[in-house]
Amino acid sequence: MNLPIAFLSDYGLADEFVGVVHGVMLRIDPELRIIDVTHAVPAGDVRAGALALVRAIQYLPRGVVLAVVDPGVGTDRHEIAVETEWGVLVGPDNGLLAPAVAMLGGGGRVASIQNPALLIPTEGATFAGRDRMAPVAALLASGQVTLTELGPELDANTLTPLLLPLVESSGDAVRGEVWWVDGFGNAQTNIAPADLVGLGLGPGDRLLVEAGSEPVELSWVGTYGEGEQGRPLIHVDSYGLLAIAVRGGRASDWLKLADRTALTIKRAQPA
Amino acid sequence: MNLPIAFLSDYGLADEFVGVVHGVMLRIDPELRIIDVTHAVPAGDVRAGALALVRAIQYLPRGVVLAVVDPGVGTDRHEIAVETEWGVLVGPDNGLLAPAVAMLGGGGRVASIQNPALLIPTEGATFAGRDRMAPVAALLASGQVTLTELGPELDANTLTPLLLPLVESSGDAVRGEVWWVDGFGNAQTNIAPADLVGLGLGPGDRLLVEAGSEPVELSWVGTYGEGEQGRPLIHVDSYGLLAIAVRGGRASDWLKLADRTALTIKRAQPA
Amino acid sequence: MNLPIAFLSDYGLADEFVGVVHGVMLRIDPELRIIDVTHAVPAGDVRAGALALVRAIQYLPRGVVLAVVDPGVGTDRHEIAVETEWGVLVGPDNGLLAPAVAMLGGGGRVASIQNPALLIPTEGATFAGRDRMAPVAALLASGQVTLTELGPELDANTLTPLLLPLVESSGDAVRGEVWWVDGFGNAQTNIAPADLVGLGLGPGDRLLVEAGSEPVELSWVGTYGEGEQGRPLIHVDSYGLLAIAVRGGRASDWLKLADRTALTIKRAQPA
Repeated sequence: MNLPIAFLSDYGLADEFVGVVHGVMLRIDPELRIIDVTHAVPAGDVRAGALALVRAIQYLPRGVVLAVVDPGVGTDRHEIAVETEWGVLVGPDNGLLAPAVAMLGGGGRVASIQNPALLIPTEGATFAGRDRMAPVAALLASGQVTLTELGPELDANTLTPLLLPLVESSGDAVRGEVWWVDGFGNAQTNIAPADLVGLGLGPGDRLLVEAGSEPVELSWVGTYGEGEQGRPLIHVDSYGLLAIAVRGGRASDWLKLADRTALTIKRAQPA
Repeated sequence: MNLPIAFLSDYGLADEFVGVVHGVMLRIDPELRIIDVTHAVPAGDVRAGALALVRAIQYLPRGVVLAVVDPGVGTDRHEIAVETEWGVLVGPDNGLLAPAVAMLGGGGRVASIQNPALLIPTEGATFAGRDRMAPVAALLASGQVTLTELGPELDANTLTPLLLPLVESSGDAVRGEVWWVDGFGNAQTNIAPADLVGLGLGPGDRLLVEAGSEPVELSWVGTYGEGEQGRPLIHVDSYGLLAIAVRGGRASDWLKLADRTALTIKRAQPA
Repeated sequence: MNLPIAFLSDYGLADEFVGVVHGVMLRIDPELRIIDVTHAVPAGDVRAGALALVRAIQYLPRGVVLAVVDPGVGTDRHEIAVETEWGVLVGPDNGLLAPAVAMLGGGGRVASIQNPALLIPTEGATFAGRDRMAPVAALLASGQVTLTELGPELDANTLTPLLLPLVESSGDAVRGEVWWVDGFGNAQTNIAPADLVGLGLGPGDRLLVEAGSEPVELSWVGTYGEGEQGRPLIHVDSYGLLAIAVRGGRASDWLKLADRTALTIKRAQPA
């Protein structure tokens, strides 16, 4: 039986790119199941794509990932297939797969995709998702090839990492950044509840958040539903990280939060 | 054999929410068929989601509906599964399912989704679509559970209704509102042809439409194709309701029509 | 076994139109495989839809195409099904299918879709995709009907063509136009490499591009990756046509290029 393919890209839905890649894979095996994780990663934003993939992968059925956010297309970066405990991840070697591979316990064998017999011949070299990575993903998912047939093996330790800043605690404050603003305007940070607990803080406490502009005071609430309508709050989001939200509103607008916005959290002083 | 799942939400396609919910359901049963009805319901707009569902459902194969427009997530509203003649509808108890249930002849048994053995454990409580309603929809569609295993039964008469204004006829005018402006700028009203026929009006007549700003005169045409290019018209749309359109243009721009815009229709006076 | 259906339209994803059409087809045969090529063709833009289809079709598995960009809905244009070597194409007879049919070697038998037994009865006549063309596509793909059952046969030579301007060479310049600006801001032209080779130009040469505003000098590079970061370039794109791109940027913004922008290319004078 075939393995499902989870497909993530920055192709957008304004063009037929996503449909064409589906076509390429279904020509190889008409029974394949393809899950569109998202195609709205901002163009060329490897970090945003990597974070979306790492958030999603724990909820996807085991199989093959095809991930294409590839600003270096047409240069000499490798296209790779990485074996993990979960399945095989296919994409450019630019850090896009790195957090997911790490979360899955690290990579096993890694192949550089080079076997011309498996690829679609093309005149230009700008659509490697369609011509190179999609066929390989489909051939792997349908069991028509194995990793060793794709091309030379690479050392997993030489893959391009994705550098993500660490959370810093200094005295009475934790400093982190926004990892993701979702379509509802909620801002997920890279700060875990334990980081605040380390400062003696917990649910119910009032916090002061500095994020560029004016400091804003808000409450750490146990669940989103405890928040006051129209007011910002901090809560543990559905991925276990601290997120800033506004009940019935958009936290990103309220606090001017965007991807990578730096922020500092400390205990609010009693009035 | 499995039942198809029709999935409607306000998750948008900017994030990986829709893909993740597909993943959750396909982990439960890799053979499930999922139809994405739409995910572009405006965030938290229960009424718009309910109207989209009721327009769509008559065209969907019988099975399971998963509908998530849930501004009250994290509060104590129920998540429910409602049996109907058509199949089972899963969603929050906030009116989202109510018009579809009514159109399908009313609800049979209703369960409140509470059985923890069926749900995905999570730290935060903000993604009930992924963690609670999607698993239940997939388990029902694949026949792995029945309604009675989901949780306590609720009285169908106590479900939250969706309050939609009625059309009012007074003397020589009918008063209604816009129910939906589609992506082409066509404005569907809640007024049926019979409402105008009750005033002695019919196709071919000239009508005066007041919708906030300047009154506009237009013709009731038998089919859209009879309209004059670039001019507004009224016709019976493909759902059997009166709609305002502009051939080759956007009626919503022409007449400043939006969701919920109030409008009055009467016979135009001869010039 | 069923044939796959490739579905392209200008329905957008803001409404439930695409989901409803999927529903209509899956009610006819729950095992159908539907590939969404794109639904973001600009509303009513037959030319853009036709070009998207012709770009995509070579990558799609053989089967049935359902293509709906139909500004004449409700008028007396035919809805047609056209047999080709590749499979059957279903859509309005307004030029939308013409380039794909030509690329596939021309049309065989053509039927006008008229058999009322195959269609969904409806009050209004504005959603012919849902009520007429989708059922026919699904019935053909699942083998429940053949072309001759759809309605009267039409002469393939009488179908509406799509008029696309030809490239003109005059002396030292080639004159063409933009066919497509994709979501990354790359501008595909209708000019083939051979058109420039005919002027004695080749990869590596400096070219002068006039596209309305200021002439811009750029290099014809062998592959996109050879371009200078942030600078415009010309290259052969993945469809074999000349395209203008900016590495790490948007050529459409840089050179003010849009669909149908006329452009002239000649050799740049040495400085």
